[in-house]
Amino acid sequence: MIKIGIIGGTGYTGVELLRLLAAHPQADLRVITSRGEAGRKVAELFSNLRGHVDLAFSEPDPKALAGCDVVFSATPHGVAMTHARELLKAGVKFIDLAADFRLRDTATWEKWYGVAHACPELLGEAVYGLPEVNREKIKQARLVANPGCYPTAVQLGFLPLLENRRVDVRHLVADAKSAVSGAGRKAEVHTLFSEAADSMKAYGVAGHRHWPEIRQGLDAASGKPVGLTFVPHLVPMIRGIHATLYARLAGADTDVQTLFEKRYANEPFVDVMPVGSHPETRSVRGSNVCRIAVHRPQGGDTVVVLSVIDNLVKGAAGQAVQNMNIMFGLDERTGLQQAGVLP
Amino acid sequence: MIKIGIIGGTGYTGVELLRLLAAHPQADLRVITSRGEAGRKVAELFSNLRGHVDLAFSEPDPKALAGCDVVFSATPHGVAMTHARELLKAGVKFIDLAADFRLRDTATWEKWYGVAHACPELLGEAVYGLPEVNREKIKQARLVANPGCYPTAVQLGFLPLLENRRVDVRHLVADAKSAVSGAGRKAEVHTLFSEAADSMKAYGVAGHRHWPEIRQGLDAASGKPVGLTFVPHLVPMIRGIHATLYARLAGADTDVQTLFEKRYANEPFVDVMPVGSHPETRSVRGSNVCRIAVHRPQGGDTVVVLSVIDNLVKGAAGQAVQNMNIMFGLDERTGLQQAGVLP
Amino acid sequence: MIKIGIIGGTGYTGVELLRLLAAHPQADLRVITSRGEAGRKVAELFSNLRGHVDLAFSEPDPKALAGCDVVFSATPHGVAMTHARELLKAGVKFIDLAADFRLRDTATWEKWYGVAHACPELLGEAVYGLPEVNREKIKQARLVANPGCYPTAVQLGFLPLLENRRVDVRHLVADAKSAVSGAGRKAEVHTLFSEAADSMKAYGVAGHRHWPEIRQGLDAASGKPVGLTFVPHLVPMIRGIHATLYARLAGADTDVQTLFEKRYANEPFVDVMPVGSHPETRSVRGSNVCRIAVHRPQGGDTVVVLSVIDNLVKGAAGQAVQNMNIMFGLDERTGLQQAGVLP
Amino acid sequence: MIKIGIIGGTGYTGVELLRLLAAHPQADLRVITSRGEAGRKVAELFSNLRGHVDLAFSEPDPKALAGCDVVFSATPHGVAMTHARELLKAGVKFIDLAADFRLRDTATWEKWYGVAHACPELLGEAVYGLPEVNREKIKQARLVANPGCYPTAVQLGFLPLLENRRVDVRHLVADAKSAVSGAGRKAEVHTLFSEAADSMKAYGVAGHRHWPEIRQGLDAASGKPVGLTFVPHLVPMIRGIHATLYARLAGADTDVQTLFEKRYANEPFVDVMPVGSHPETRSVRGSNVCRIAVHRPQGGDTVVVLSVIDNLVKGAAGQAVQNMNIMFGLDERTGLQQAGVLP
Repeated sequence: MIKIGIIGGTGYTGVELLRLLAAHPQADLRVITSRGEAGRKVAELFSNLRGHVDLAFSEPDPKALAGCDVVFSATPHGVAMTHARELLKAGVKFIDLAADFRLRDTATWEKWYGVAHACPELLGEAVYGLPEVNREKIKQARLVANPGCYPTAVQLGFLPLLENRRVDVRHLVADAKSAVSGAGRKAEVHTLFSEAADSMKAYGVAGHRHWPEIRQGLDAASGKPVGLTFVPHLVPMIRGIHATLYARLAGADTDVQTLFEKRYANEPFVDVMPVGSHPETRSVRGSNVCRIAVHRPQGGDTVVVLSVIDNLVKGAAGQAVQNMNIMFGLDERTGLQQAGVLP
Repeated sequence: MIKIGIIGGTGYTGVELLRLLAAHPQADLRVITSRGEAGRKVAELFSNLRGHVDLAFSEPDPKALAGCDVVFSATPHGVAMTHARELLKAGVKFIDLAADFRLRDTATWEKWYGVAHACPELLGEAVYGLPEVNREKIKQARLVANPGCYPTAVQLGFLPLLENRRVDVRHLVADAKSAVSGAGRKAEVHTLFSEAADSMKAYGVAGHRHWPEIRQGLDAASGKPVGLTFVPHLVPMIRGIHATLYARLAGADTDVQTLFEKRYANEPFVDVMPVGSHPETRSVRGSNVCRIAVHRPQGGDTVVVLSVIDNLVKGAAGQAVQNMNIMFGLDERTGLQQAGVLP
Repeated sequence: MIKIGIIGGTGYTGVELLRLLAAHPQADLRVITSRGEAGRKVAELFSNLRGHVDLAFSEPDPKALAGCDVVFSATPHGVAMTHARELLKAGVKFIDLAADFRLRDTATWEKWYGVAHACPELLGEAVYGLPEVNREKIKQARLVANPGCYPTAVQLGFLPLLENRRVDVRHLVADAKSAVSGAGRKAEVHTLFSEAADSMKAYGVAGHRHWPEIRQGLDAASGKPVGLTFVPHLVPMIRGIHATLYARLAGADTDVQTLFEKRYANEPFVDVMPVGSHPETRSVRGSNVCRIAVHRPQGGDTVVVLSVIDNLVKGAAGQAVQNMNIMFGLDERTGLQQAGVLP
Repeated sequence: MIKIGIIGGTGYTGVELLRLLAAHPQADLRVITSRGEAGRKVAELFSNLRGHVDLAFSEPDPKALAGCDVVFSATPHGVAMTHARELLKAGVKFIDLAADFRLRDTATWEKWYGVAHACPELLGEAVYGLPEVNREKIKQARLVANPGCYPTAVQLGFLPLLENRRVDVRHLVADAKSAVSGAGRKAEVHTLFSEAADSMKAYGVAGHRHWPEIRQGLDAASGKPVGLTFVPHLVPMIRGIHATLYARLAGADTDVQTLFEKRYANEPFVDVMPVGSHPETRSVRGSNVCRIAVHRPQGGDTVVVLSVIDNLVKGAAGQAVQNMNIMFGLDERTGLQQAGVLP
């Protein structure tokens, strides 16, 4: 059994991590911290966990965390980096579900997150936890930066095209739509039910923190800097991301369907649908799958990729558990084989 | 492994049954019939099952069904009764998720369902599959009538009061609210998204088919005929039933909380919440639990019971699997221990 | 033209008041105050008002308000009472959309609202602004307490039965369901989209501030104290209240349909539907109508009343404008004849 | 008063037309036809119209329609073209809300709609009813083809860029998101609440009938054939379209904000928001406005236009009334000045 600690489990990635770990045959959940809810039973806050998680939240205690085999950080940005050095020194593996270790360049990170980084020396060591790209490195990693939700859906949708040099990388477009839970479990006006229901809008068109994260991945895949326009939208769903990607084919003879099928043939959590398909976000609700379809409308030179995930599973907690499985030599699929909840 | 057949798996109870059985360690799904979709892969119709169910729908074939250990019927009312005799004769256990065998009285059944019953001689043998009432009979049953969704939530909420003779049974009120999936996966105008979203309404106030089913159960529990006003409502949710029950206490000294806790102390799928709680339907989304809270507002003589279930799980497919587990001597919880998906 | 001021227009009753007044032919909107948003254009906060309301929010200024003919207070509870004396002294008519003047008994008010009342001497003078009951008094009133949303739907549904002494008043049940906007435009976790969508729950079963308000009205209508069980529920809608009311008929010969039709024959904003109807909340979305249907299931002695309103219109801003119309001698329907927005 | 007839008023564009015309000071609604609902009161089918529309549906009667000044056709595609000749001969003005007269080229129309056109000689005469482009022609028109919902949002968003030759027209991208009411009030499985709620998907990526309609308009605006990739999506909203448009600027010095402000300075129903804005679909719910914001992310060469409408108002019934106003010499805004319903 793997002894597990969670820092900050009161948000949506926290409760989802608990739901998944509660059903994971190798997980031994030892400690879950929360300053605000210390002393309160987890299942009191999240009633779906009644009968599944008996633990109470506790004040962050370095010793308790140091006694774990792995610690997940499910806090807002800026917290994980204050824990990383100490935990690594204690020999604990560390998986951050926030953004503290996602960008390799310190200056870029500090520009987009607006604070000084607490342990820049670890940015180089941290492995970006997208198993479809970095599986071998994750096996050896002490510190994994779990990807953002948009970056997961967008990168998995673009990778086969970029790695195979099939598109003009100067003008990529990612039109991405997110469920409201992507904004977290914070008391804010704009994500109230009465504000967000039966309406939609774009946001952050001028600049969103996931833009440099996506670009870093796409630059690496294509071997040169890409030009990316990324427009996120808020849609009235609880869970789900739908990324619609547009790129211009460099040559007319590319069989894009085969390209995608080959690239993901051995990936347990990427499902390339048949030609002509349109994936629905609900098909992956509660599941760790990224479901993709590829189109060339009217046989033209523009390729359209449709990529859907559950933002809280493959876009957060599920991918974190997938990374844990890889880091501990388990079958990567352990505890992650739930089918989507539909309807 | 239990060899399993499903008659009519293209509705919501069908796809939910498939989702649950796909993860059930003893289930060996052999055949799933559908006249309309014969030949089509199940996972083509329900993309959440891609990678989980490889079967295709087939034309109903008596021989194939007769080779199963158990057959579930997930069709509209009136179909299961045309299959029952033959399957039972072949030694197959039969669980009907529709209403064909729920009422013991043939005349009452025919009045509410508007057709002649095809095998009235089986109405007496059929066991009403509410494990919290009929567990011992279910163990021996060949034919189980899986309860309706409203009847499950309402009966579990009233039972402790009625069995212990604590309320005036002449004036029970069940104000029940259902998600839209309760109306099934039929093409109809009134359940279109644009009709049902951001709105709610009562329906069937003059008479609903679940009324005689609920009454039959409550009459039995209280040992005499009850007076029940049952008002169902349609609310804009995909899944979930919330039953709010009102009864007048016969005596002032009843500790209703303890009454409920005792009654359900050993029930794996009924969760009595602490005093003062308000269960949310989402806490049981995708889960087989019925979650209950009991109140006596202002300490008066009216008791208010709040009872929530997922209409497709404890109100349909989950309870059917629970019945199968009991019929085959398995741990009743096998394959049914998923926590609710929240948010 | 009526010179109008609004205190605290940044909540949902505020924006709805602005939407209605912007289309009211006699309304001359002069001032709208908000400490938090002072200096900001109203239409910047509420983009639906671009091109309709050119005003900016301003710091509360007694002189500016005193120059109005009528002032609406659309603040949380406890603010209006600090303005009332001064405004009335200045000869301004005052309509409070919050609860400060809804209860006639000071002690009851202070018990339920938890603070001392700032001007108890006005509680006796204030007129409860339910035009269907107090139209004549409203005509003469200086100070109107606009009813709560639940109290409007519940009282209009019970009145014909109580005024005509047709039911046992000791055991009335009001099972009420509200849209999320009823909780206001405050940043809180439990009304986030991801918390409130695709789920429902009861709340405040032990005691809700609308209970004494409803009781006060029902006591008056029936001429004696009533016994009322009131259970509010939160349902995933933006707007709308559905009250389902249960009462036992005192005599079997009551023609409840006629009772309701007669009572509301001349009411412009109460619509009694034909026998057998089930009103939908969306049929009054954006409209000032209360739509009612009456049932006697199975011809028994329990009468079931279904009463729907838009909580922000007939349950708040629309009723406030209706009161203004009455106070200023206008046709009561002025500016309030929009049909519901459906779908 | 304008004597008005409606052919086929049982769909969503029909009920919306009725809602708008019921409040239009010059509208005299004479006849509304429906084969399926003949004899039934309109307000019985659409309860929001109780007290607003007293008419009943009637069998289509050429004489009754010929007695009108204007007839709206709110039927599915293929019906209006069977009425057009006769009505025009009778001197009746005709506005088709479906697609029968939207494309000027008969062959293109027949290819996309799959039937022979019943009156191809009228395709040249019909005026495409986008007032922002064709106002002068609409004034003189006998026959107006009311634009589709997507085409309205997309064309209004692209026009200033194309008319001024500021973008590379070979690679335009329109990523459009529609509410479910855009699919109409037909009983179909894929638009059921339980299918469409809490989920989203793209559809028709291979080809959608609005693609040739949009292209026809954009070709005309830019003076040469454009390359357009159009991807529609279904999102869980009742009303609203959000079009996100991408184009590459031909020169770096374009002040796109000013371009849009100038183009629409005198348009009563196009609202260009300030720099940095993100329009919400709810801000135009129930209103005839198209609200637009323009962005150049990171100051690059890609311009992003955000364009929102209510698909049933500016995208259908409202625009049809706007066209009627223009055709009859009324103030274009008559009966169309409702603010959006928010929240």
